[in-house]
This record gives sequence, C-alpha cells and structure tokens, in this order.
Amino acid sequence: MTRMPPPIDPTRDLVLTRVVDVPPELVWRAWTVPAHVKKWFTPAPWTTVDCEIDLRPGGIFRTVMRSPEGEDCPNVGCYLEIVENARLVWTTALGPGYRPGVASGLAENCGVDFFTAIIALERAGAGTRYTATAIHGTAEGKAKHEQMGFHDGWGKALDQLVALARTM
Amino acid sequence: MTRMPPPIDPTRDLVLTRVVDVPPELVWRAWTVPAHVKKWFTPAPWTTVDCEIDLRPGGIFRTVMRSPEGEDCPNVGCYLEIVENARLVWTTALGPGYRPGVASGLAENCGVDFFTAIIALERAGAGTRYTATAIHGTAEGKAKHEQMGFHDGWGKALDQLVALARTM
Repeated sequence: MTRMPPPIDPTRDLVLTRVVDVPPELVWRAWTVPAHVKKWFTPAPWTTVDCEIDLRPGGIFRTVMRSPEGEDCPNVGCYLEIVENARLVWTTALGPGYRPGVASGLAENCGVDFFTAIIALERAGAGTRYTATAIHGTAEGKAKHEQMGFHDGWGKALDQLVALARTM
Repeated sequence: MTRMPPPIDPTRDLVLTRVVDVPPELVWRAWTVPAHVKKWFTPAPWTTVDCEIDLRPGGIFRTVMRSPEGEDCPNVGCYLEIVENARLVWTTALGPGYRPGVASGLAENCGVDFFTAIIALERAGAGTRYTATAIHGTAEGKAKHEQMGFHDGWGKALDQLVALARTM
C-alpha cells in the first residue's frame, strides 16, 4: 500500500523545508516523547506546559501552549500515520479515536482553523531534510495560520528542536 | 502498534451490529470495489450513482446518492485505516490527502454532520459478525444522524450488501 505523497496546493498549504544537522532518529524522538516536546514545541517566550502523546493511529496528540502573559492555549488532535524516523501525520480536525473535532472558540487550537500536519524526515548526510506541511481546508485557513506566524514560529521551534537534539 | 478499539460513547456514537451469513472476504469486497458499492450502499429507492475509492490511508472515498426525486447528495471523505477483511475506517471530516473538510451546505454529506465510520468484520462460523460504528463530534450530530434513519438505513443497506455478496 503506497503512502499519500504530501499534497501540493499552494493556495491552501504551508510548507517549511530545511536541512538540519541532527539525524532523523533524534528529530523523531524530539517529536514523539512528551518530555522532549515540552522543551521545544513553542517558540520562546511562549512555553509548552503540557503534552500528551498516544503514538498510534487514532491516538491523542495534545499540547497546551502558554503565552508570556500566562494564557493557556490547548490543542487537541490525533495521529493518522506513524512511520518511525520518517513520517508523522496528525490532524486537529479529529480528536482521539478519530472523533470529529468541534472547536468552537478562539482558545481552542489557539485560534487556528483545523489543519493536518505532515512531518517528513529524510536522511541527508549526517543530518535530516525536514519538511513540515500544514494542510488547511480553505485559503482563508491558510492565510490566518500564515498571519499568525507559521513560518517564523515553526522555524523558531525547529531551531529549538535542533538545539535540544544536540544534547540528547 | 495496537489499533484503537472502537470507542464507546453512547451519547455520541451510533452502532449497528449483526451477524450475516456471508464471509468477511465478500463483505470486504462489497465495501471496497466501486462497482459493488454502487449496488448496495444506499437503501432503495435511493441509488448510489457514483463511487470513487482510493484504498489507502488518506485516499478518497466518495459516493453520490440520488433521491427518488433525482436529487444528488455527494459525500466526500478519506480512509484512515485499511486492514483487509477485518477493519475499514474512514471519515467525512477529512477529504483526500487528509485535508480538513469544509462542508458548508445541506447538499454536502447529505446534511449529516462530519462523522468517522468504523466497519469491523469478525469471522463467525461461515459468516461475519458485522459492526458499523458512526462516531460524531457531538450528541446533536448523533441525534441528527439517528433521526435521518441511521439504524433503518444502514440496516437496509447491509441487507442489500448481503444479497449482493451471495451472488459474488
């Protein structure tokens, strides 16, 4: 069974690609162990104060981000695909057990419309070609996520992930 | 990696369980081959006039139901889990490539709120223990689906599936 390639729809998708100097195995651990996620997932001065991971299709991926002012943003989603050291897919459009999401307020999912994230890792020498794709239902959803700082935020978070991975 | 058990939330889930006298292999074929799906999927006098299946995680599952008055109801979703002859999971909350759904009108998804369906097949003698679970985001979504005739409709469709499977 072939896996879906990352979809390419520039009107609705956001993509961050970079080669980092830590191997896929460490990037994978940083993404899949809650104690690690809490250290890098949110660009400072925001923090990630909670993280729950049930690493199987349909399992929960939950984080709570805290603003510098102390306001908490819970994010709940579930995993769709787990290919160790290579590909991690989750969505905020479904909760644990694949239950359709019902975000109804700005505090939920930090005001970001439902999206599906694909984290693709390819070995590149001693490092990793890292591609994060965020798939939105509409161009408006993409634009909102972009305006909230997708590229800067996911890029800074990746810097934090790499710094953490170097200490593993 | 263990699979998620079917969630049990009687306030939000609908379940149809029955033992049928055709084997899991034929039930599976009836569910996964478009030419077969078109013959049983919609309780008569409704018909299924189109069906598109890309049987892999993230692949499309699309049907078009036609009312006796000639009105078409398109349904688009994507597959989440495919375990041959045993377990088929798809959701209307995501489109192909796991793109979050954006149903915005009654004609979409036949007016049913987003739901995830789990079709579980277990061998039972020469037949199959068939369990179809529809997982909704809210109790209101469940109630609406129930009022639209979930039990009667999915039950009649299963009768049609069994009748078809006997001819395979």
